[in-house]
Amino acid sequence: MSDSPAVILVNPQLGENIGTAARAMANFGISDLRIVQPRDGWPSKRARAASAKGVKIVDEAKVFADLPSAISDLNHLYATTARPRDMIKTVFSPEQAASDMHVRQNSGQKVGILFGRERWGLSNDEIALADEIIMAPVDPKCASINIAQAVLLVCYEWFKPKAASLGQETGELPAAVETGLRMPGTEPASKQQLLGMYEHLESELDDAGFFKSKEIRPKMVVNLRNLFARAEMTEQEVRTFRGVIASLTRQHLRRKYGK
Amino acid sequence: MSDSPAVILVNPQLGENIGTAARAMANFGISDLRIVQPRDGWPSKRARAASAKGVKIVDEAKVFADLPSAISDLNHLYATTARPRDMIKTVFSPEQAASDMHVRQNSGQKVGILFGRERWGLSNDEIALADEIIMAPVDPKCASINIAQAVLLVCYEWFKPKAASLGQETGELPAAVETGLRMPGTEPASKQQLLGMYEHLESELDDAGFFKSKEIRPKMVVNLRNLFARAEMTEQEVRTFRGVIASLTRQHLRRKYGK
Repeated sequence: MSDSPAVILVNPQLGENIGTAARAMANFGISDLRIVQPRDGWPSKRARAASAKGVKIVDEAKVFADLPSAISDLNHLYATTARPRDMIKTVFSPEQAASDMHVRQNSGQKVGILFGRERWGLSNDEIALADEIIMAPVDPKCASINIAQAVLLVCYEWFKPKAASLGQETGELPAAVETGLRMPGTEPASKQQLLGMYEHLESELDDAGFFKSKEIRPKMVVNLRNLFARAEMTEQEVRTFRGVIASLTRQHLRRKYGK
Repeated sequence: MSDSPAVILVNPQLGENIGTAARAMANFGISDLRIVQPRDGWPSKRARAASAKGVKIVDEAKVFADLPSAISDLNHLYATTARPRDMIKTVFSPEQAASDMHVRQNSGQKVGILFGRERWGLSNDEIALADEIIMAPVDPKCASINIAQAVLLVCYEWFKPKAASLGQETGELPAAVETGLRMPGTEPASKQQLLGMYEHLESELDDAGFFKSKEIRPKMVVNLRNLFARAEMTEQEVRTFRGVIASLTRQHLRRKYGK
């Protein structure tokens, strides 16, 4: 994807983490992986093995000897850190950073995100090259996000508004993005169909003596109707349920009058 | 945490994934881990080894023989799936689900989230026990989120508004959550300090003949002031920069008039 932000891993130690990071990127349409001095060399079998559908991203990753050459073509750079640093620098949440990236990318800027080493993250010198810091909101008592998890959160936030705007542009969201009530092969029932079902049920309940008194009936009817209203029934479900009522009634008649 | 949603792993295969899921949970203040029939038995050394700061969560995880007993105390259940299923069911994004969880938890409900097996997720029977489905917005061409990544995204979205409300309640955000410009040990410069700096710089530039003509001066001054305004300088930085100006000026005088 040409508008993909660059994901820059600085001195990653384990190939496995590089692969898992690529796997995370692939889910969110981000393909520009750059690796600065991977500790265990490159290419890495372990990175490929852990990358799942991100294997193309691993194969096309660019490897750099130092950080300045890895970022030379970028206009704006974010550095992820786990702890606040003793630096005068703006801190964004992943969500705020994603929003900032989209604004910049829409005006033609190339953006990138730095992720540090497994053991101790990024050095202050490396962070100073970045324009802003990204920190995920975590419980300070238990903060321990690894590189691939950090890559996942940032890429996820970058893709979120993208997924929404994809839907607006094309008139339909990709299948895996669309939310709301799914009704494969059927439609929501009309109010007329629902009312028909309610009246069918209530008249059968009248016949069966379900309502112990005339006074209690209205309240019980409201409760029953509310129950079914919450279910957001489909046309097919209304038909099915009317079948259920009819079937139970016949059973009831059979019991009452014999077969 | 008593208001923690339950994270329910159904038939997880690898202990490592259970541990990484617990590690993800720990970051977001979620501690209630339930495991239904872990394939490789329990306790699991691999789960402990992969859990980092989530080791307490692994040690206190509850193991169940079947799904119904794992969810019996819950009021509302979400099922995570990677693909849309042929089911009449509401689909939430992780963000929508998190918002729904908070509304329910605020009214005293206990909520839980189902995560399926590594290989094929949840069965339709298992999903039918849930009230809604959670699907992360991913690129449909490359969707491959593993269990621990799915747990991370859902827990992260659950913690996000929580982190924000923590800040509102206590008047200060936990250090790891606060965003915005950080200025450890110093304060933003006042406009008076900035103006003093601007005038200092501009008068030295006047003396040095930097402005080639009177006509061009106002526009260049605006450009220079805008540059420094964007930097959101601190008091200390203003002092430092005035030192820079003074030092450069002395250098300039030395060159001009000799030492």
